[in-house]
Amino acid sequence: MAGIFNTNKDSIPEKLFYALFSLQHRGHESAGITYRKGSELAVHKGLGSVGSVLTPLLREPIESRVGIGHVRYSTHGGNTVENVQPVIAECNKGKIAISHNGNISNAVALNEHLTDEGSIFRSTSDTELILHLIARSKGTSFQAALVETLHKLEGAYSLVLIHEDSLFAVRDPHGFRPLYIGEKDGATYIASETCALDMLKVRKRREVKPGELIRISSSGVTSEMFAKPVPVSACVFELIYFARPDSEVFGHSVHLMRKKIGAALAEREHKTADIVVPVPDSGNSAAVGYADKAGIPFELALTRNHFTGRSFILPTTTDRELAVRMKLHPVQPAIEGKRVVLIDDSLVRGTTSRNLVKLVKEAKAKEIHLRLAAPELKWPCFFGIDIPTRKELISNKLSPEQIARDIGADSVAFLPLEDLRKCVGNNGGFCDACFSGDYPIPVEHRLKGA
Amino acid sequence: MAGIFNTNKDSIPEKLFYALFSLQHRGHESAGITYRKGSELAVHKGLGSVGSVLTPLLREPIESRVGIGHVRYSTHGGNTVENVQPVIAECNKGKIAISHNGNISNAVALNEHLTDEGSIFRSTSDTELILHLIARSKGTSFQAALVETLHKLEGAYSLVLIHEDSLFAVRDPHGFRPLYIGEKDGATYIASETCALDMLKVRKRREVKPGELIRISSSGVTSEMFAKPVPVSACVFELIYFARPDSEVFGHSVHLMRKKIGAALAEREHKTADIVVPVPDSGNSAAVGYADKAGIPFELALTRNHFTGRSFILPTTTDRELAVRMKLHPVQPAIEGKRVVLIDDSLVRGTTSRNLVKLVKEAKAKEIHLRLAAPELKWPCFFGIDIPTRKELISNKLSPEQIARDIGADSVAFLPLEDLRKCVGNNGGFCDACFSGDYPIPVEHRLKGA
Amino acid sequence: MAGIFNTNKDSIPEKLFYALFSLQHRGHESAGITYRKGSELAVHKGLGSVGSVLTPLLREPIESRVGIGHVRYSTHGGNTVENVQPVIAECNKGKIAISHNGNISNAVALNEHLTDEGSIFRSTSDTELILHLIARSKGTSFQAALVETLHKLEGAYSLVLIHEDSLFAVRDPHGFRPLYIGEKDGATYIASETCALDMLKVRKRREVKPGELIRISSSGVTSEMFAKPVPVSACVFELIYFARPDSEVFGHSVHLMRKKIGAALAEREHKTADIVVPVPDSGNSAAVGYADKAGIPFELALTRNHFTGRSFILPTTTDRELAVRMKLHPVQPAIEGKRVVLIDDSLVRGTTSRNLVKLVKEAKAKEIHLRLAAPELKWPCFFGIDIPTRKELISNKLSPEQIARDIGADSVAFLPLEDLRKCVGNNGGFCDACFSGDYPIPVEHRLKGA
Amino acid sequence: MAGIFNTNKDSIPEKLFYALFSLQHRGHESAGITYRKGSELAVHKGLGSVGSVLTPLLREPIESRVGIGHVRYSTHGGNTVENVQPVIAECNKGKIAISHNGNISNAVALNEHLTDEGSIFRSTSDTELILHLIARSKGTSFQAALVETLHKLEGAYSLVLIHEDSLFAVRDPHGFRPLYIGEKDGATYIASETCALDMLKVRKRREVKPGELIRISSSGVTSEMFAKPVPVSACVFELIYFARPDSEVFGHSVHLMRKKIGAALAEREHKTADIVVPVPDSGNSAAVGYADKAGIPFELALTRNHFTGRSFILPTTTDRELAVRMKLHPVQPAIEGKRVVLIDDSLVRGTTSRNLVKLVKEAKAKEIHLRLAAPELKWPCFFGIDIPTRKELISNKLSPEQIARDIGADSVAFLPLEDLRKCVGNNGGFCDACFSGDYPIPVEHRLKGA
Repeated sequence: MAGIFNTNKDSIPEKLFYALFSLQHRGHESAGITYRKGSELAVHKGLGSVGSVLTPLLREPIESRVGIGHVRYSTHGGNTVENVQPVIAECNKGKIAISHNGNISNAVALNEHLTDEGSIFRSTSDTELILHLIARSKGTSFQAALVETLHKLEGAYSLVLIHEDSLFAVRDPHGFRPLYIGEKDGATYIASETCALDMLKVRKRREVKPGELIRISSSGVTSEMFAKPVPVSACVFELIYFARPDSEVFGHSVHLMRKKIGAALAEREHKTADIVVPVPDSGNSAAVGYADKAGIPFELALTRNHFTGRSFILPTTTDRELAVRMKLHPVQPAIEGKRVVLIDDSLVRGTTSRNLVKLVKEAKAKEIHLRLAAPELKWPCFFGIDIPTRKELISNKLSPEQIARDIGADSVAFLPLEDLRKCVGNNGGFCDACFSGDYPIPVEHRLKGA
Repeated sequence: MAGIFNTNKDSIPEKLFYALFSLQHRGHESAGITYRKGSELAVHKGLGSVGSVLTPLLREPIESRVGIGHVRYSTHGGNTVENVQPVIAECNKGKIAISHNGNISNAVALNEHLTDEGSIFRSTSDTELILHLIARSKGTSFQAALVETLHKLEGAYSLVLIHEDSLFAVRDPHGFRPLYIGEKDGATYIASETCALDMLKVRKRREVKPGELIRISSSGVTSEMFAKPVPVSACVFELIYFARPDSEVFGHSVHLMRKKIGAALAEREHKTADIVVPVPDSGNSAAVGYADKAGIPFELALTRNHFTGRSFILPTTTDRELAVRMKLHPVQPAIEGKRVVLIDDSLVRGTTSRNLVKLVKEAKAKEIHLRLAAPELKWPCFFGIDIPTRKELISNKLSPEQIARDIGADSVAFLPLEDLRKCVGNNGGFCDACFSGDYPIPVEHRLKGA
Repeated sequence: MAGIFNTNKDSIPEKLFYALFSLQHRGHESAGITYRKGSELAVHKGLGSVGSVLTPLLREPIESRVGIGHVRYSTHGGNTVENVQPVIAECNKGKIAISHNGNISNAVALNEHLTDEGSIFRSTSDTELILHLIARSKGTSFQAALVETLHKLEGAYSLVLIHEDSLFAVRDPHGFRPLYIGEKDGATYIASETCALDMLKVRKRREVKPGELIRISSSGVTSEMFAKPVPVSACVFELIYFARPDSEVFGHSVHLMRKKIGAALAEREHKTADIVVPVPDSGNSAAVGYADKAGIPFELALTRNHFTGRSFILPTTTDRELAVRMKLHPVQPAIEGKRVVLIDDSLVRGTTSRNLVKLVKEAKAKEIHLRLAAPELKWPCFFGIDIPTRKELISNKLSPEQIARDIGADSVAFLPLEDLRKCVGNNGGFCDACFSGDYPIPVEHRLKGA
Repeated sequence: MAGIFNTNKDSIPEKLFYALFSLQHRGHESAGITYRKGSELAVHKGLGSVGSVLTPLLREPIESRVGIGHVRYSTHGGNTVENVQPVIAECNKGKIAISHNGNISNAVALNEHLTDEGSIFRSTSDTELILHLIARSKGTSFQAALVETLHKLEGAYSLVLIHEDSLFAVRDPHGFRPLYIGEKDGATYIASETCALDMLKVRKRREVKPGELIRISSSGVTSEMFAKPVPVSACVFELIYFARPDSEVFGHSVHLMRKKIGAALAEREHKTADIVVPVPDSGNSAAVGYADKAGIPFELALTRNHFTGRSFILPTTTDRELAVRMKLHPVQPAIEGKRVVLIDDSLVRGTTSRNLVKLVKEAKAKEIHLRLAAPELKWPCFFGIDIPTRKELISNKLSPEQIARDIGADSVAFLPLEDLRKCVGNNGGFCDACFSGDYPIPVEHRLKGA
């Protein structure tokens, strides 16, 4: 998710292209850009990657004052054209464009209330309901209506909006999802992660604060704390898996935090092994930290195929073993006869790990010890991370020992929850509900269906 | 526009495909199909032709009880993905899918009222507002809410809708746009023109009456006249240009009506010529009628290229002369030295005719007399036909004699309005406002901007 | 097939694009252009239509002195990339590009001889063997080698070639296939039919003579009769079906010749009918001639769909009835109760006619009399027209009366061979072997396999 | 390059697909597969990746006895459809399909001789000339003709061929390029690297020997040493850069050899640094070896974007800095204030390194020391590796010190040639001409133009 308020003649769509390109790890199923063109909002969006959907925007520079963009994977609502963001609508407040990262946890109740009142929903995403609330607000200005709306929302929402010639950036009071604001040569940049700002060489930046609403217009930048302070609960899974390693989120370097977690994992171990091997690329940073701390040689004994993944989709993705075999390749002479510590970021269903362990066994490892740079994943997320139902999560079914037997490893171990909390700072400020079940917002009613 | 209620295991999407394929002359910029799949509505739609957008639906049979489809050219609202029909929304009446042919003439007022009340509009088409009105209706059943909505609409609307397992077909009280219902082997078929029913070999059929609302469900077919009778004003331009010649619309054979118009045009003439040449294919039927009546040999001295047109789009469409030259080819030995009566359906801006006359001159015609099987086009349409603004219409700027000079013809003549009215039946029942300015519904406020 | 020798800065590829676009009825399965670029030959070719394969060449003007182009349907050799023309090769005579229209009737013998000598064939088309012969010639100049090669070829060949900066045009001594040369503003244009020259507004033109070799270079245009005169045998099927009606081929207007044939067909008749209906567009010209001569009203009671055909291909083309139904639409009110004379150009397998008659019957014709503007098709063609094997040709299996019964018509009649010969000129000059079996070149050995 | 001789009903094209998919690092500009289908050779090939060109072959199993496939990047001959392999031709020996990895160093002389004799060349690749030589051979059997042909070839060639129902595998006497043969369940597999055999779980395998010709047919596998032994000169650049790290080539593990080279590089150093950072992924293996040996912490401080590279091509690739910035991302908190040893595989033009150093500087490295796991690249390759001309190679223009200044690094150092030779085995057996200029085959005449 990104937004730009321009002060020069640079091409807004081009800048948004590069910002979104850098954020594709956050969603590569659809991409979209909206920018102000005269009094209209031009829209380019579609299913597919940033490269495939938005490259036409690079053909020639397009002058514009303000624009926003979005990349998406389906957390809430199916992967249909109707759900691709930004969402644009016209209402009594004028034309509004909005992009949303997160999940509104009281969406069902709000939705019911709105449909009772006669609202129609053309998409299944949370985002449309924010627009409905703005339209129905009696607020005397757009910003007043927006604030009134935000007061009704619960859950996770980092937002960028366009209204008239203004760009708005909003982060929910709990600060679930990251959001950054930067400035360069008079232009203002909003992005989910700093890697998007780096791509645009925007060095001057800070976090948008939890509960902050920023408005950028030709009269300048104003900031408003729209909600009473509540305890912050930033998503720890961003640090563990979701964010890009070269990004800063929540004030932390993602790569360094993962190294720290890897080191913490090693500290708990008395296991003697010959090599530490990351599952590329998700286990890379933690493996470096683990190997350093454990004093065991780091070895790149699993290589990753650059022709697979996002760019190439097999006609049948049902064959998980084949998919893993096409993507990850063990270096047999580096593995054969060795006791291998395999480092991955987390364990979800266990399917990929099972196939991975099989590959490493075929390469004749003497022992395979799978280490996860995260605690056991046991609870669903209602704040924007796509985690399967409880029944599908392997840690709700099996103990680490049982998992080891199930996937064919010699041992499996997770980072203890208290160690994770120690790594990220014991004074809280993080939501680790997917590991702990400690939801910072009541979600009992939603847990029933999860 | 088409809708099907199935009673057997035939593939609804496949049948809709062929129906829409037959209706592409009504709109080839986008195509869409929605059908009931369990309790959901599956949607396939996109910009492009029926062939390019919907062919994937032919891969395998899909069982479904009810479906609707639409082809579109932009009358109202730009040609964007958001505007592609059918439009699907969820509201307090449940899930609704709708396709609309026509234009709501009080859309602006309804839209203002709805936005005042807090509705948001995600598209610029009229269709979305019908859904808003249904959602806001206090009607105790879906059908009651639909009828309440229809009472608020003015202008032209032929509609098909899906609600739960029912298919609805509606035609506005004035009957502006055509709509047919047919039955075969227990299944019910709705289509804008009979050519779509022919394609599906549905022979038993009748017009949906102006002001009729038909509901087809597993309990059978019910019909309701939802509005008090008003004078019918069927669009005469459907007969002149828009509908396919092999169709029946408004109870008339399109081809035979055009022949009749061609004959009427010939009756007014004392011009002696050597050959009557249609501009293919829009002037074909009228030219046959003209040649017969005038006793002048019919000659196919302009041939049409089957590789141009809808299938092939030049990178630059600005070069109108080139576009005409790529599509229409004079047969010089049939034209050289001859006095040619050139028959076309109507004259809009005059650009194509100018290039056409140039081509026929290059083929060394001795004289070129352009005859239009329609009166002078002078007024905008607010009921579903895409006619340029008054300023762009050549007949608002030049007399027939001036047009002849302007486009290089030896003479230009139109069908007198009274002759057109005689052809289609003097007792009225038609809207010919684009020629006469006699709008059957007050449109003063809209004319200002036209 | 087309070639251009330029003398100004016009874009050769662009001109070739428009020439080939006009010739697509001669082949729409592949398209290719080669033009001289410095000392190299740039090539753009592929499977598909001119529009889909060659549109990229329109992006910007490309200066070049000489270029040739080709459109193809598979007469000889499968429809693979290897067979797409122009064919370019490098040999001891330098770089050569060649496009070929026709069929070499002694190809098998030449091929055997060449492979015995160690030649390799990368395609299955005749064209490659011409290059082999040029390469193996001891001729002291390229033109000498080309003439030596032509002396070895039997059968049908109209050729354009590029060698160094020269353009060559060749037509075989029998003149089987048409070939025209034109001049405009100092540039020289070669094309199979005049319609391509019309597209480029090249009005000054003549036939390339049978047995003529023309060389166009910066030193001017030279012409050589490379072979002793033999009786000319131009392909009569070009006039009956293959060429575009607005073209001139073999000195005749295609449209006027077809009208003449239609009139000849009518002269043999005593049948009284109500309407004459062409099968669009192949029967159009003959139907006009027939109706005029017979004094029966011409009626456009079958309309053609402009969304099918070349632009849209159904996933399964096996369903011939569906294919016909999607392309041709009877106008029932014009047909119902009428005695219909249906005019088509020729009868091959009878499948399309059977489906067509079915359609016209469904439209309730009282009688259907199918008339073919050609004699009975009974023999294969070895000179460039794609005719099925003898066994597949319906006229080798059934008499006209039997065909009528077989396809459901009330009668079927063909143009007698002597009438065709009278139409095109009794003094010969045409090959009508597909009707008569009188091959102008011995083909006994080939007939065995046909 | 791969070939399969089947003994069961497995789908040959599917197996070839996965083999070629694994070999795409050897060429991703085009892909092709040929397999025996009855007595014909079916061909699927095109410009693009294995995924884009060959996925249609996965739709359904295709039974076949024998097939070969190829992936290509342009060493010799442009990137045109004509040059895509396998090359298929028909000659007096029958139908032959061939794929070739390498470069024939006497191609020009052979080509001249062949064109003198009347051969034509339809492509600019070396491969076609092998087919010409086979066709012109007087050998009494195909294998005899093949051997006679091989005796005429100089330079690098690993080949797979199909003739009738047999598969042939050939490696040139110097063994420039790798080639492996494997066996599983009675089927025989040929592939350039073992990673392709791993993909197919073919564990039983050996190198095809330099100078060996293997024939696989239904009568079994036969091997022939077709040439007198010469000193082997395997391409050292395969180990340094070209081959995939998990492959074995020339009997060596690529990954382990690169680690060894990295360690050798470290041994020469007295430089004290804070972190060793690989340029992903080409510097990965060497960096692990370097860090281990130098005792400096290994750090993954440059991350690689998985959405760039082969899958996404920018409209303008001219902006090299942007291209690097989109692909490689420094982790600033891991770099800031550190003395960084940056490890890459080799230095060609220096452009990428310049941009890379710029990125690392922006991330505030205290010092940047670029280390290359290869000697200075100074000479062109005539045996299959695509190296720019001497003038373009930075090491022919600047000393390491000058390069450091030029690209903005604090120091630049290469692996000394003698160290490389020690790593791969001092007893020779390798061609390192690109570093040393010691060509194992006389190439003086070719060097002039290089």
